[in-house]
Amino acid sequence: MVCCFNRTGPTVDLYPLSNYTFDKKAAQLEKSKNHDERLHRMKVNYEKVGRRETVEGVLLAHKHGHPHVLLLEINQTFFKLPGGRLRQDEDGVTGIKRKLFKRMAPIQEHFTPQWEINHLLAEWWRPEFDSLLYPYKPPHISKPKERKRVYLVTLPEKCLFAVPSNYLLRAVPLFELYNNVNRYGAVISNLPQLLSHFNFTIN
Amino acid sequence: MVCCFNRTGPTVDLYPLSNYTFDKKAAQLEKSKNHDERLHRMKVNYEKVGRRETVEGVLLAHKHGHPHVLLLEINQTFFKLPGGRLRQDEDGVTGIKRKLFKRMAPIQEHFTPQWEINHLLAEWWRPEFDSLLYPYKPPHISKPKERKRVYLVTLPEKCLFAVPSNYLLRAVPLFELYNNVNRYGAVISNLPQLLSHFNFTIN
Ligand SMILES: [Zn+2]
Ligand SMILES: [Zn+2]
Ligand SMILES: [Zn+2]
Ligand SMILES: [Zn+2]
Repeated sequence: MVCCFNRTGPTVDLYPLSNYTFDKKAAQLEKSKNHDERLHRMKVNYEKVGRRETVEGVLLAHKHGHPHVLLLEINQTFFKLPGGRLRQDEDGVTGIKRKLFKRMAPIQEHFTPQWEINHLLAEWWRPEFDSLLYPYKPPHISKPKERKRVYLVTLPEKCLFAVPSNYLLRAVPLFELYNNVNRYGAVISNLPQLLSHFNFTIN
Repeated sequence: MVCCFNRTGPTVDLYPLSNYTFDKKAAQLEKSKNHDERLHRMKVNYEKVGRRETVEGVLLAHKHGHPHVLLLEINQTFFKLPGGRLRQDEDGVTGIKRKLFKRMAPIQEHFTPQWEINHLLAEWWRPEFDSLLYPYKPPHISKPKERKRVYLVTLPEKCLFAVPSNYLLRAVPLFELYNNVNRYGAVISNLPQLLSHFNFTIN
């Protein structure tokens, strides 16, 4: 099936980073203190509920016309995209909205951010209980331990964010991410390639 | 603008590699004998007609359910996707059809391959007259020397190909391409990531 936009690449509006306002809100601590604890928790959960389903969101703005990705930095060492784990039977789009709201939205009654889940960018698979992710289901792996879906999220011209106080919000340019798997990991360092099939309108 | 298929990933049918038949046809020699000659020709052409516009096609089949990319191998050392340079004012979709026909179609009168240009997968930029390509326009580069667009091409259930005799047709699995930039180059080794947002139906 051929989509109306696909052969020229979908058009996405980007606005200057300075259009957005970033507040702080209460800390949201990690559920696991370190890598070993995280792997242990993954195993326990896998026994209980099966394959882990995670979702992450890519929010973009531009500086001088070059796209920047909004990343959360923890302890000045570790970068992540906003996102997290789906509930049982929750679909990806509902889940990424819930997670983005929790991580990035200001705490105001009746506030609904105008963030649109625009495009599935990539799907990563974790075959074993370790840190290796692959952009395909590796052959002969019948029970992968996690599927991680990454969505492009489009932003309105202006809006307000609120980020947990234990995170630092960073806007990182594509040229810093590209080929930088050691610093950013596979999911984030591959975003420039995955974003290259969009037509960005620089507003 | 949100596309109907994008949030779940477009669905693409894959058929077994054994469904396809590969014939040979007359050799199509490279215009340049080596890397230096190619760069020289790029410079001369840039002076004459401006930025080089190239297009490449990704044709897929599966073996045992795992997607394989059809690559052309030259001199047992160098792999490339079928494709090439656009004519002046030729659009990408017309150009990739013409190039695929030239490289891959049998020489039969009135034969029209049922290959569909499905999706723009990536857009690569060459800022200088060298071999470095980036999946974005590098900042402060006002006149990139080449733009290369890569399209996903969907195949019918069965069909006949004919490949120039100086090429060897190879069906290479995604797991062999992934993270293998030294052997396949940036454009080909990044295909697994770029293809991960599709839902492949294994027929
Ligand atoms: Zn569409
Ligand atoms: Zn679409
Ligand atoms: Zn659509
Ligand atoms: Zn797409």
